Amino acid sequence: MVNFETSPEAYRHWKLDIEGQVATLSMDVQEDVTLNEGYKLKLNSYDLGVDIELADAVQRLRFEHPEVRVVVISSLKPRIFCAGANIYMLGTSSHAFKVNFCKFTNETRCAIEDATANSGQKYVAALNGTASGGGYELAIACEEIYLVDDGNSAISLPEVPLLGVLPGTGGLTRLVDKRKVRRDRADVFSTLAEGLKGKRAKEWGLIDEYFPTSKFQESVTARVQDIVEGNGRKKAERGIKLNPLQVEVTTDGREYKYVSVKLNREKRYADLTVRAPDANTPTAIEEIEKLGDTYWPLQAYRELDDALLHLRVNQLEIGLVCVRTEGSIESVLAVDKTLEANKDHWLVREVTLHMARVLRRLDLTAKSFFAMIEPGSCFAGNLLELALSADRTYMLNDPEAKVEMTTSELNKGALPMSNELTRLQSRFLANPEKADELFKHKGTLDTEEAEEAGLVTFAPDDLDWEDEIRVAIEERTSLSPDALTGMEASLRFAGQETLDTKIFGRLTAWQNWIFQRPNAVGPQGALTNYGKPTQSQFDYKRT
Amino acid sequence: MVNFETSPEAYRHWKLDIEGQVATLSMDVQEDVTLNEGYKLKLNSYDLGVDIELADAVQRLRFEHPEVRVVVISSLKPRIFCAGANIYMLGTSSHAFKVNFCKFTNETRCAIEDATANSGQKYVAALNGTASGGGYELAIACEEIYLVDDGNSAISLPEVPLLGVLPGTGGLTRLVDKRKVRRDRADVFSTLAEGLKGKRAKEWGLIDEYFPTSKFQESVTARVQDIVEGNGRKKAERGIKLNPLQVEVTTDGREYKYVSVKLNREKRYADLTVRAPDANTPTAIEEIEKLGDTYWPLQAYRELDDALLHLRVNQLEIGLVCVRTEGSIESVLAVDKTLEANKDHWLVREVTLHMARVLRRLDLTAKSFFAMIEPGSCFAGNLLELALSADRTYMLNDPEAKVEMTTSELNKGALPMSNELTRLQSRFLANPEKADELFKHKGTLDTEEAEEAGLVTFAPDDLDWEDEIRVAIEERTSLSPDALTGMEASLRFAGQETLDTKIFGRLTAWQNWIFQRPNAVGPQGALTNYGKPTQSQFDYKRT
Repeated sequence: MVNFETSPEAYRHWKLDIEGQVATLSMDVQEDVTLNEGYKLKLNSYDLGVDIELADAVQRLRFEHPEVRVVVISSLKPRIFCAGANIYMLGTSSHAFKVNFCKFTNETRCAIEDATANSGQKYVAALNGTASGGGYELAIACEEIYLVDDGNSAISLPEVPLLGVLPGTGGLTRLVDKRKVRRDRADVFSTLAEGLKGKRAKEWGLIDEYFPTSKFQESVTARVQDIVEGNGRKKAERGIKLNPLQVEVTTDGREYKYVSVKLNREKRYADLTVRAPDANTPTAIEEIEKLGDTYWPLQAYRELDDALLHLRVNQLEIGLVCVRTEGSIESVLAVDKTLEANKDHWLVREVTLHMARVLRRLDLTAKSFFAMIEPGSCFAGNLLELALSADRTYMLNDPEAKVEMTTSELNKGALPMSNELTRLQSRFLANPEKADELFKHKGTLDTEEAEEAGLVTFAPDDLDWEDEIRVAIEERTSLSPDALTGMEASLRFAGQETLDTKIFGRLTAWQNWIFQRPNAVGPQGALTNYGKPTQSQFDYKRT
Repeated sequence: MVNFETSPEAYRHWKLDIEGQVATLSMDVQEDVTLNEGYKLKLNSYDLGVDIELADAVQRLRFEHPEVRVVVISSLKPRIFCAGANIYMLGTSSHAFKVNFCKFTNETRCAIEDATANSGQKYVAALNGTASGGGYELAIACEEIYLVDDGNSAISLPEVPLLGVLPGTGGLTRLVDKRKVRRDRADVFSTLAEGLKGKRAKEWGLIDEYFPTSKFQESVTARVQDIVEGNGRKKAERGIKLNPLQVEVTTDGREYKYVSVKLNREKRYADLTVRAPDANTPTAIEEIEKLGDTYWPLQAYRELDDALLHLRVNQLEIGLVCVRTEGSIESVLAVDKTLEANKDHWLVREVTLHMARVLRRLDLTAKSFFAMIEPGSCFAGNLLELALSADRTYMLNDPEAKVEMTTSELNKGALPMSNELTRLQSRFLANPEKADELFKHKGTLDTEEAEEAGLVTFAPDDLDWEDEIRVAIEERTSLSPDALTGMEASLRFAGQETLDTKIFGRLTAWQNWIFQRPNAVGPQGALTNYGKPTQSQFDYKRT
């Protein structure tokens, strides 16, 4: 069981220092502190445990230290920044673990870019030593990259030449699509095991600047100071504390305050329920600040995030998640109203950005999602996004019972997908006017109205409901899990592509393919034989 | 050895009828006429041989029958339109063959859409029987889809539920991105083995209309007549004949008139040379029409197309193609000038569109390409695109020798990539002004100027040239072919994504992954066990 919760006091691999508006996140990986057995985390290489700490730090900086404007990522190891994902860990991991590991590390890097773009926390990579593979991929997720010029330190993406796999944590995509490196240079760089040092690296746009060892620290500090000052003064906000989530774990599931996961292991599906807030959730910003991490939209979505990660990594055989909601639609809408009214307040902004990230995590989860809309459910506003994220929505059609859905202002753009469209835009590509109509609708939509509005896949009546749901679950969980993953990855992201969707679509899919190929993972494969006396041997057929 | 050349007289599986401005392409697959052994092409299912005929017909309609405005695709088999790619063929094919098969069929479907969009030949699918899997994918590549309502005929994408693979010939992408079907409905449809009949299919946007059997023929004919008339009168152009290519095949390569392929089998690379036209290529449209398929830009690119297909499918172990050109830059530029001056003439338009398709075939070929720019080469205008398509360009730096490159008007948009950008736009995403500068440059660029302009990866001098090229070739061909495929697919397509790039990137990559997964192709996999008494058994771990 992988645990995704941590906090700075418990970090083993990172050190977080904050001085005024500048945070420094220093990598100092303990080689013996590994998530699994069979490998050592030498040279600041990382495994999932290291990345869980990084993800925590990125998240925490936004909520606990909103005053921070620049985050410098550096290393405490001499002459080495980071050697990337640990190769022996990859070589000994199952296919499913490799894929989940890469997905999580990709999401962490996207969260870094999200913090830079939306939270005014700009990430700067201070490469005080060599950054190879995932090390450079971490750097390229930062907005600026500075490399020490010590005659030795280099940046590199040696995955293709040394390991027979891709720089799949966004590396290839960010090279040509974020830093817009010329494609032939990107080709050379990605096949050059030893990488490039300062001068050429700058010339090719792979880093922003290089400084000699004696001036490295001061030059980076000066640049950081420029950024801090260039952005104007920031209000001296006081952060809120992210306390550990309270969760009761049983063999059959996980019970949080607002979220519960019930596993139906033999049937390979789970019920995931999100509960609405109480009726009296505060509306004043001072009270919200006082509530801190117990404020419903923050607590519920943190719980949901944790539940999703557990389902992904610890419950591999669960192929289908039935998403349910419980509670008062009015209470959910009241929260959305408060979030919308205070959207310029830093904490509300962070809470909303977090909700958006969690929903994107759901979109990117390789399990089927069916939303179950029944009496007592509250698929409204932000929770409507759960239904819109789902592969299908089932809504009970029973005139005797009150079954409703509705939108809020939050469905208009505050919670974008990775393709930067709203879920309604992606859903209604053929008739964009349907989204407008929906927003013009007064009050909640009953089943008939919701169906007419295009929100419902199937609306069985009360006589058929149980049977139809049972059959739908059985059918879905009988299908090939791999085919479903590929199908959902294709159908969920209609419309434009972005850097993020290119990473999770094109790049990730190719990497997953390669992670299945004998040339990488077979007995003679490059990943399998890395660092061993045996040599990799390729089947040279091009596919 | 697969042969990609055919002509209507030789078709075994299709019948091409032309009546005025309407062509009918009728599928009538001969079940015993297969490309390989071990399967029968029942129910209008297809293998690569069937699709080579289709691709030929689509191409030929543009050149030989420019008067045609509507192409109706239908079937001569009762109650069945097309059952899709033959499953036993897929089940018994190697991974590399499956991937190449899908790539070719995808390119054929893109060519259908290209003909509709750019050649005024609108494709209409007249489904006079059930269209399943690749059958429906063929229909969805057409602009309009009509289904017979006979109580039995349906459209379906049964790949996921029956075979554990994807509708990977564009199916999933076209569902949500071309026809913009609501994602939950696309999900239901793609998991429903039996598919949908007329009424529901129309309601969900999967077809345009359905007609009862008794009225099917006349209704489709009426609709086709509407299209023909609606588009205004078309000039009664007379087409040109596409004669068989003349090629001398040896164990070491293929020799066409303007193209030659030299295989260096032990070293796993090939030299691909394209020769410039003669100095006196005509400039008057009447002379060009008389030349027909011997007009240089048509003949050279047809030869190049054939050479690329052979390299892909018949020379799997060739991992690298060194692209060379030979001849006079002036002659190439003269052709480009003629093409540009006559771009509104139907034949010139078709010739240019064809060049663009061949270059896209190159972009999508899973082999590395290095352009070798030496004295006597002519990487100018349309042939400059070969260098821009290449993963790297090597240009000799020898002040004693004349080594040059240059642009023409054709580099400004006539030969777009699948992402609808020019190759210069894709190359210079970081500084788009570099393309403008290039077009302002007077005369050809020597090595130094070309390097400065951003066209050259490496420019070794005459002392280093041979060694550097030799080492570059050796290094490239020593790398994992799979890692290179994934890398090139990521680096070649910087910038925006389109329907086409989504199909060749996201969808194809996921399909290739699934084509490696035991749940599809293992001894217990769904593809392997289809139609056998044995049952597929899945590993239900979700990845």
